Amino acid sequence: MGNHRPDPAGTERGTERVEAFSDGVFAIAITLLILEVKVPRSPGATIDLLKELQQLWPSYFALVLSFVMIGIYWANHHYVFKLFEKTDHSLNLLNLLFLLCISFLPFPTAVLGSYMLDGSNQTTAATFYAFGLLLPALSWTLMWLYACSGRRLVDRRLEPRFLWILTAKYVVSVVVYSIAVYVSWVAFKLGLACCVGLTLLYLTPPYFPALPARRSVRR
Amino acid sequence: MGNHRPDPAGTERGTERVEAFSDGVFAIAITLLILEVKVPRSPGATIDLLKELQQLWPSYFALVLSFVMIGIYWANHHYVFKLFEKTDHSLNLLNLLFLLCISFLPFPTAVLGSYMLDGSNQTTAATFYAFGLLLPALSWTLMWLYACSGRRLVDRRLEPRFLWILTAKYVVSVVVYSIAVYVSWVAFKLGLACCVGLTLLYLTPPYFPALPARRSVRR
Amino acid sequence: MGNHRPDPAGTERGTERVEAFSDGVFAIAITLLILEVKVPRSPGATIDLLKELQQLWPSYFALVLSFVMIGIYWANHHYVFKLFEKTDHSLNLLNLLFLLCISFLPFPTAVLGSYMLDGSNQTTAATFYAFGLLLPALSWTLMWLYACSGRRLVDRRLEPRFLWILTAKYVVSVVVYSIAVYVSWVAFKLGLACCVGLTLLYLTPPYFPALPARRSVRR
Amino acid sequence: MGNHRPDPAGTERGTERVEAFSDGVFAIAITLLILEVKVPRSPGATIDLLKELQQLWPSYFALVLSFVMIGIYWANHHYVFKLFEKTDHSLNLLNLLFLLCISFLPFPTAVLGSYMLDGSNQTTAATFYAFGLLLPALSWTLMWLYACSGRRLVDRRLEPRFLWILTAKYVVSVVVYSIAVYVSWVAFKLGLACCVGLTLLYLTPPYFPALPARRSVRR
Repeated sequence: MGNHRPDPAGTERGTERVEAFSDGVFAIAITLLILEVKVPRSPGATIDLLKELQQLWPSYFALVLSFVMIGIYWANHHYVFKLFEKTDHSLNLLNLLFLLCISFLPFPTAVLGSYMLDGSNQTTAATFYAFGLLLPALSWTLMWLYACSGRRLVDRRLEPRFLWILTAKYVVSVVVYSIAVYVSWVAFKLGLACCVGLTLLYLTPPYFPALPARRSVRR
Repeated sequence: MGNHRPDPAGTERGTERVEAFSDGVFAIAITLLILEVKVPRSPGATIDLLKELQQLWPSYFALVLSFVMIGIYWANHHYVFKLFEKTDHSLNLLNLLFLLCISFLPFPTAVLGSYMLDGSNQTTAATFYAFGLLLPALSWTLMWLYACSGRRLVDRRLEPRFLWILTAKYVVSVVVYSIAVYVSWVAFKLGLACCVGLTLLYLTPPYFPALPARRSVRR
Repeated sequence: MGNHRPDPAGTERGTERVEAFSDGVFAIAITLLILEVKVPRSPGATIDLLKELQQLWPSYFALVLSFVMIGIYWANHHYVFKLFEKTDHSLNLLNLLFLLCISFLPFPTAVLGSYMLDGSNQTTAATFYAFGLLLPALSWTLMWLYACSGRRLVDRRLEPRFLWILTAKYVVSVVVYSIAVYVSWVAFKLGLACCVGLTLLYLTPPYFPALPARRSVRR
Repeated sequence: MGNHRPDPAGTERGTERVEAFSDGVFAIAITLLILEVKVPRSPGATIDLLKELQQLWPSYFALVLSFVMIGIYWANHHYVFKLFEKTDHSLNLLNLLFLLCISFLPFPTAVLGSYMLDGSNQTTAATFYAFGLLLPALSWTLMWLYACSGRRLVDRRLEPRFLWILTAKYVVSVVVYSIAVYVSWVAFKLGLACCVGLTLLYLTPPYFPALPARRSVRR
């Protein structure tokens, strides 16, 4: 045990730690979502709990949507970091920016849950939520473009065509979320429908690149 | 260190990552439960703290019950994922659905703790809590049935009889929790007693299948 | 990768998973403590923030004390689980009970922070906090006694004298915390002083048993 | 699997566990920050949600600043613990003190976010926040000085000049944060500008020491 210290000079390049830290943030953000669903309270007055619990349905809706989104990003994060051969300082910072956007998501989720039924604020709430979904899509795409440009950090054996497909997919996501933000502002129900639709789309299984097998390595 | 990148083409099948992520959600959900036990506050007025702390006993009761339930699911999750030879996209999604139900549990727990002594809402609170316990049981069983049907993902060496026992156990759980939801609505004390009883039942040690030992593998 | 599934029949005995899960609960409980320090708010009225932040000193005090306690238990947990050769179902349940007590600690911490300066409730708050410290000490000792009795789960190479020293230490802890609960009820300042004193005592380095070295094993 | 228990007598010296626990605290603290951004609520009255969300900009500002700070400390923690050959009891305690300061950060962040626009309290809020940034810098430097003095715990192959550069860097940080606290008290905008400036400075990539490569070791 005493002899296995990694070499200080050459180890910052692996992606394991960044992945473990990111996993932690994903797991915490996804579990914190429930804290924004508040127990109905009405100090001094009697309430009809059943009715109150039913009227919380926008909170349940927002919770499920955000839960699935974070879950999808978690799976994608693993998928993409496996395509990276190494990491560097800039990628770490871009990943931190992405995690900031993920950890921010519980807030627009709570806003949507609180104001989706409030006639005078539901447009704002839906637009803010769509914006909250745009942020991780944007930072994710930035991170990918950085890692991918000049084949800087991605596995050299990957085919250019495969990288182009992923790039196109992520850029289109950003465009569609931008549209969803705009649509939410004009017609909030349609905007939310866009968000739900995109999420359902992302639930389809990812495409795995067929690679010439590398020499099998032991962990 | 630089040479141990796993092969992008062949690694999504292992269950380690899904297990690690699930463990994170279990640990966070189980620890968040305490946040729903609120410090008694009464701005402007004096309170009898001792009495207030005693009157929180429904919150303590709900906390302990949910803590034990999540702990049991955590242990079961490990137990069952060890029976899986691999994972696939659908299992990952079903597991995400299950984790959503686990992370939801602090909410009905808080509702039960807040309204168990409120005469006009205690039935609703108990029924909602029983429903909150039904959800993970249901998604758990769905996940198991998917993995088990056609022996899709489970270890091929497991005896059919052993799989049938587990299947029966999980399906019966769903039925019993459904009954507990109904009973809670009719007689909330009996419904809660069902929930406590089921939990105590689950505390008994799990049955371990005797398998022909596989060739010992080094991690 | 596809071939390293552990054998379902023989792996539940290791302590790694229980330790990892416990570590998660420790890390979360210790970090959640800050959530109970509430930002001073006074809707509609102006406040003197500097004065309010200073008057929160009982919250800071309780935070630091509980943080150190959880940190000590974390270190002790590692220390003791390294003495265990394996785990079993009962130990897992006792560990779960211990984790319940750890995850409960933020609540008495918040109560103490909120009511330590409230003349009519400070005795209750201090006693409740001392009781909150007694609970993990008690469940910890139960866990140890179970693992140790009949040398059930501890490393067989450990000297009986060493085990007796640890047993005595843990039993004495329970006794002293019980006394602290009583003293807090009679004279809350003295009771809190007991709690602080015990914590400082636990900060001394643990004693490491000298063992005949086992054959070095590779992870 | 059954044979890989580490040797109780010789394993407390590795840094893996301390790092894993610290990573957990970092990930939780960084994700909890969002919980301090409260959904605008105004019971009984109608609110202009868009305006309210805009007026939360001090909360967003404080969130981003603290997120980046914790992210930087996380990266630095890995960087520096890789320079350590082993850990000991005192280093563990100093690390615990450092983690206490990190886990405290969400509180001054929330205070700054709540009172940055409140004319009569913004000076207090900014000073408290700068103080909240000074605390981890101080405990970090204490930890480093302990590990470094007499080359107690650092890798023996590191050049003295490299250690001096890091020591100087950390001591200067403490001095600059102390100045930032003072400046915040006199001119809060300038104080916050100091905090932002320091953060941006820390975003530059760290310097990696060139070491004679150690014999490559397998994990």
